[in-house]
Amino acid sequence: MNDKTTKVGELKALVEKFVRERDWERFHSPKNLAMSISIEAAELMEIFQWLDIKEAASLPKEPTKAAHIKEELADILIYLISFCNINKIDMAGIVAEKLRRNRTRFPAKKVRGAFLKNYR
Amino acid sequence: MNDKTTKVGELKALVEKFVRERDWERFHSPKNLAMSISIEAAELMEIFQWLDIKEAASLPKEPTKAAHIKEELADILIYLISFCNINKIDMAGIVAEKLRRNRTRFPAKKVRGAFLKNYR
Amino acid sequence: MNDKTTKVGELKALVEKFVRERDWERFHSPKNLAMSISIEAAELMEIFQWLDIKEAASLPKEPTKAAHIKEELADILIYLISFCNINKIDMAGIVAEKLRRNRTRFPAKKVRGAFLKNYR
Amino acid sequence: MNDKTTKVGELKALVEKFVRERDWERFHSPKNLAMSISIEAAELMEIFQWLDIKEAASLPKEPTKAAHIKEELADILIYLISFCNINKIDMAGIVAEKLRRNRTRFPAKKVRGAFLKNYR
Repeated sequence: MNDKTTKVGELKALVEKFVRERDWERFHSPKNLAMSISIEAAELMEIFQWLDIKEAASLPKEPTKAAHIKEELADILIYLISFCNINKIDMAGIVAEKLRRNRTRFPAKKVRGAFLKNYR
Repeated sequence: MNDKTTKVGELKALVEKFVRERDWERFHSPKNLAMSISIEAAELMEIFQWLDIKEAASLPKEPTKAAHIKEELADILIYLISFCNINKIDMAGIVAEKLRRNRTRFPAKKVRGAFLKNYR
Repeated sequence: MNDKTTKVGELKALVEKFVRERDWERFHSPKNLAMSISIEAAELMEIFQWLDIKEAASLPKEPTKAAHIKEELADILIYLISFCNINKIDMAGIVAEKLRRNRTRFPAKKVRGAFLKNYR
Repeated sequence: MNDKTTKVGELKALVEKFVRERDWERFHSPKNLAMSISIEAAELMEIFQWLDIKEAASLPKEPTKAAHIKEELADILIYLISFCNINKIDMAGIVAEKLRRNRTRFPAKKVRGAFLKNYR
């Protein structure tokens, strides 16, 4: 499986099958899954906790760290997919919709090079 | 765009284009993106903060709440995709690999109906 | 040391000494400490991840779980204290101030028994 | 109220009174409070989200940002105190105990100047 050939729906089906075979839907309330996403996101952050921004940027090139990072990303993604499966949410649809709105909020011309200044 | 027809790679390309047009790659260090995923995950959690598990389960059926939930999910997913874009990580690949390992750790036969007991 | 006799400032001094003896102030930027607080908060959440609200409520009465909960709470608190030490923030002062504002936002008479209804 | 004169127990009593007057103990399950701590911690992180470590370090000196930082810290602390109130946990006690254990795990002599190397 890879991103070039796999449809989002196929990835969702894979996760759904895994969850259903274990009878885990009953734990997969949106409240619990939101917590799970957050917990796994914290585990990803922990890898970069004490590094400065530049050190952190080179970490995914170290093989052991890369494996750890991928595992935490997969955990976040699996819970996110499960959340969408259980609540019948179209992932491609919500991303496209959000980017559409962000294009209006942050027009490329206005934003380029000005972000940090605006932010602070 | 929808999950049935969209390939994961197409979704990644859409996010990459959005980020590049705004010259935002320079903020997208893994450390910052891990923080961003975590912050957005907390915003998703906040929607369910004071509800019990059952009340929370019916929330995605209320239209206003559903729109809010989808927006927070999209935010998490967009940062996650951007993390994978910048670090050349194959999302379908890491999910497939993690599920493979989880199948060994949690064999369906052993796990069904026993999860909570084992957990505590 | 206990809450009845210990002043907040004494607790802060204890953490400051621990950090200084290890020369750890240089890692204790507000950005890193905010991440640390968040990471430890996720570890506390994890203990309650799959339980419903009532099951979770009885967990702190189980001795093994209680020890684990206390350790995660201590980690959050130590990072929070260190954040306040490094930025010269008065903890009692900010709590008193925030409660003062919350008393205006949420007058007891209005709020009693009405929270969830207002919330949703 | 300030850290020099206020006992931890007095701070706890202040929060307990606030919660009780609003009849909010019934929402204050450990699961919900752990979520609340985590949500507020993410709001603190958000202030530093796109800044590098050094920029972030000077933020608490800007008055508007300082006020925002203090408010988020107070929110985390109030939920943490409420968690300890409801579960009868001695905050000074758990901090002292955790530092005691950390002194054994991270002896000052061994740790000084070696942290990052050990960490990676």
